[in-house]
Amino acid sequence: MDKCVEYLREHRREHLDWTIELCRIPSISTKEEHKQDVAAAVRWTHELCEKIGLKSRVYETGGHPAVCAEWCHAPGAPTYLVYGHVDVQPTGDLALWDAPPFEPVQKDGWLIARGAADDKGQVLVYLRAAAAWLATAGKLPVNLKFLIEGEEEIASPNLGPFVEQHRELLACDHVLISDTGLIRDGWPTITYATRGLLYKEVRLSGPHHDLHSGSHGGVVANPANVLAALIASLHDESGRVTIPGFYDDVVELSDEQRAQLSALPLDEKEYITSLGSPAPHGEAGYTTAERRSVRPTLDVNGIYGGFMAEGANTIIPARAGAKISMRLVANQDAEKLSGVFDRTVRERVPDTVRVEILNHGACGAYMAPRDSQPMKAAERALREAFGKETALMPEGGSLPILPMFKRLLGVDCLLIGLASPSCNAHGPNEKVLLADLDRGAEAVARLFGYLAG
Amino acid sequence: MDKCVEYLREHRREHLDWTIELCRIPSISTKEEHKQDVAAAVRWTHELCEKIGLKSRVYETGGHPAVCAEWCHAPGAPTYLVYGHVDVQPTGDLALWDAPPFEPVQKDGWLIARGAADDKGQVLVYLRAAAAWLATAGKLPVNLKFLIEGEEEIASPNLGPFVEQHRELLACDHVLISDTGLIRDGWPTITYATRGLLYKEVRLSGPHHDLHSGSHGGVVANPANVLAALIASLHDESGRVTIPGFYDDVVELSDEQRAQLSALPLDEKEYITSLGSPAPHGEAGYTTAERRSVRPTLDVNGIYGGFMAEGANTIIPARAGAKISMRLVANQDAEKLSGVFDRTVRERVPDTVRVEILNHGACGAYMAPRDSQPMKAAERALREAFGKETALMPEGGSLPILPMFKRLLGVDCLLIGLASPSCNAHGPNEKVLLADLDRGAEAVARLFGYLAG
Repeated sequence: MDKCVEYLREHRREHLDWTIELCRIPSISTKEEHKQDVAAAVRWTHELCEKIGLKSRVYETGGHPAVCAEWCHAPGAPTYLVYGHVDVQPTGDLALWDAPPFEPVQKDGWLIARGAADDKGQVLVYLRAAAAWLATAGKLPVNLKFLIEGEEEIASPNLGPFVEQHRELLACDHVLISDTGLIRDGWPTITYATRGLLYKEVRLSGPHHDLHSGSHGGVVANPANVLAALIASLHDESGRVTIPGFYDDVVELSDEQRAQLSALPLDEKEYITSLGSPAPHGEAGYTTAERRSVRPTLDVNGIYGGFMAEGANTIIPARAGAKISMRLVANQDAEKLSGVFDRTVRERVPDTVRVEILNHGACGAYMAPRDSQPMKAAERALREAFGKETALMPEGGSLPILPMFKRLLGVDCLLIGLASPSCNAHGPNEKVLLADLDRGAEAVARLFGYLAG
Repeated sequence: MDKCVEYLREHRREHLDWTIELCRIPSISTKEEHKQDVAAAVRWTHELCEKIGLKSRVYETGGHPAVCAEWCHAPGAPTYLVYGHVDVQPTGDLALWDAPPFEPVQKDGWLIARGAADDKGQVLVYLRAAAAWLATAGKLPVNLKFLIEGEEEIASPNLGPFVEQHRELLACDHVLISDTGLIRDGWPTITYATRGLLYKEVRLSGPHHDLHSGSHGGVVANPANVLAALIASLHDESGRVTIPGFYDDVVELSDEQRAQLSALPLDEKEYITSLGSPAPHGEAGYTTAERRSVRPTLDVNGIYGGFMAEGANTIIPARAGAKISMRLVANQDAEKLSGVFDRTVRERVPDTVRVEILNHGACGAYMAPRDSQPMKAAERALREAFGKETALMPEGGSLPILPMFKRLLGVDCLLIGLASPSCNAHGPNEKVLLADLDRGAEAVARLFGYLAG
């Protein structure tokens, strides 16, 4: 293992060139004109896999291709599947970038390029570690598979079907992913939970057309007023969601977990101030750290109706609507709650208006087992590589691939985040701290060793 | 008086030409390029006043001019002020008109032209009646003044100041106005009450920017959710407004008034169906006829916040706002309620968001005395001219000039409506039934006689 680490240090320059080379490919998956670039990034990854000694193949999907590679010559040893993606977000306004987004620049230890953090730099950490093992020991201590796709930034529309069709090819004991962040620069972080999402749109309609509020005000229900009452009814005074059974399946935190969460470096006052709100607010009985990650929420994401321009217009709106989404936590069932939400809305809306409910997506929450062998192994590997205890962090956002892997392959995921909190993924001047990638590669090389048992 | 009526019938053709001539002038007060046309319509009216024997003068105001005319040679007799306007609304989409809006067309007894009903045709009814008296009797039975303006369709911004500056010139015992409608074609109608208006906009803000609802959902108040709760709190379960003291000054209807209102020809089911709403809704304990005219209301006129386009976006909105207006009735005080509304909103909105309240105008309600001598005289005159009992109707909309005349001149207003329910004022193919104008002119000629005592 020491040889591996030595090898990684010696080949740092070469490995950095891999990252730079991959970041030069403008593999923007959302844009049709970059279709060939996404394919090129996948092919480049395939060629690197072959070069370092993996068996690799590019697979066509319904959309952008994916690469599957593996080294499975450790009979009896466990098998790990590394998931990552080499497609990137659009650049946005080029004027906001200090340098062209696909011409990587090094500055003060950072590599600045679209995709440097999300996810090219992080994906390559696993190939660096595998290369180190294969070059120094001629073998890996565990069986290793890779699934690197080109559609993550467009919500992986073909990943589920692909995994379903290739269950045997992808069969494994655990999934390894680095596509999240460090809680602070230099502070190793494992994300052990993500929230699910249930996104609805409620549209109410009353009169055929907007009505003159003088001539007709008072005689029919105003869809905007009814909508407000509906939305208000969805929370009680303590900030809890009033949808029947909403909390029934929620996994409550243990005292230990709460203590651990409260020990994470989050200064509530500083955090709320940075968001701009005058005060914190949320479900009574929980801390800000808990509210934003391990507790479910319900929020209006957008609301509209009637006269929305500057000034005044005296109308009763014919229609009003709201986009309402819920962040779910383990073990809430998005599908079950979807039906309950719809029934609750239809029950609460009076028959003086008409209701239409649109679905804008559902995705399950995910929570990794906290005391699994891979988790313990990763904590050790990260501690040794970063010289610091690992932060175990729940994440408030959603990662649909986690419940997908659980459902289709029956395995859990280990999320080792290597992106800086200031990496600006999806924004201009996306960047990654090269030292974190280097430490990450060393940690992953160690992890492979510890995963062997 | 019979001679007057005879004169009106003999001069019908000539008087119709007046209406056509005035309707030819495209006096659109909202459009700068029609400034000269508004002035031309005012001057045309001034010249007609002089021609029929009134003393007349055009006055400049801060905006479009106004004409004041009078015949005040009946010492000891009461003085009446006729108010009207000769400016009109824009035409809107010309493709929706069957003929050019300023080229009046006669069809099936209707005169079709912009301004035919609102208000040129109705204003001229008073000049026709005055002309008949002056031509046949050489005098009027009462003192008569006219105030015809050119800014009604832009909310009469200079009328209040003008009246205030010319209190003596305009001093009178009562104001006569025909700028409203008939309850049904051929059914004489006096509007005895209008609602006031108090129009606010509440803007709530929380985070500096829209937040990712995954990363930050649950930790700060969502301005759209808070707004919904605020709006919901403004009504109770019985549909009553919960602003403290909101109903304190409301003049409750007498049983006689309620009976009279319920006798008006309004088919609730047909009416609600025509609006398009699935069911009636309003303040408990009142009929639809009462709710839309003599009861105060509170309605959201517009609501906005966050992601309002098609599809889904997982954000916590930084801001949300609602335009909220109240229709007031006699004797609610718009100014007092404005302060109460603001205080109530500030009290009810938690300190987890910031509040801003904009004012979009306030206007008092108006209720004419139901048993005044002019009211009785008008009922008699209308009955004789239309051969039918007069409908006494409260109107749900607002007419700011009514409380203005009351405040500045200390007098009440009599509103004799002559526009058909199907006149389409402000819309394409605006029209007036010529028979209603003719009957109106006869009624007004009789009214002048009965007003004398």
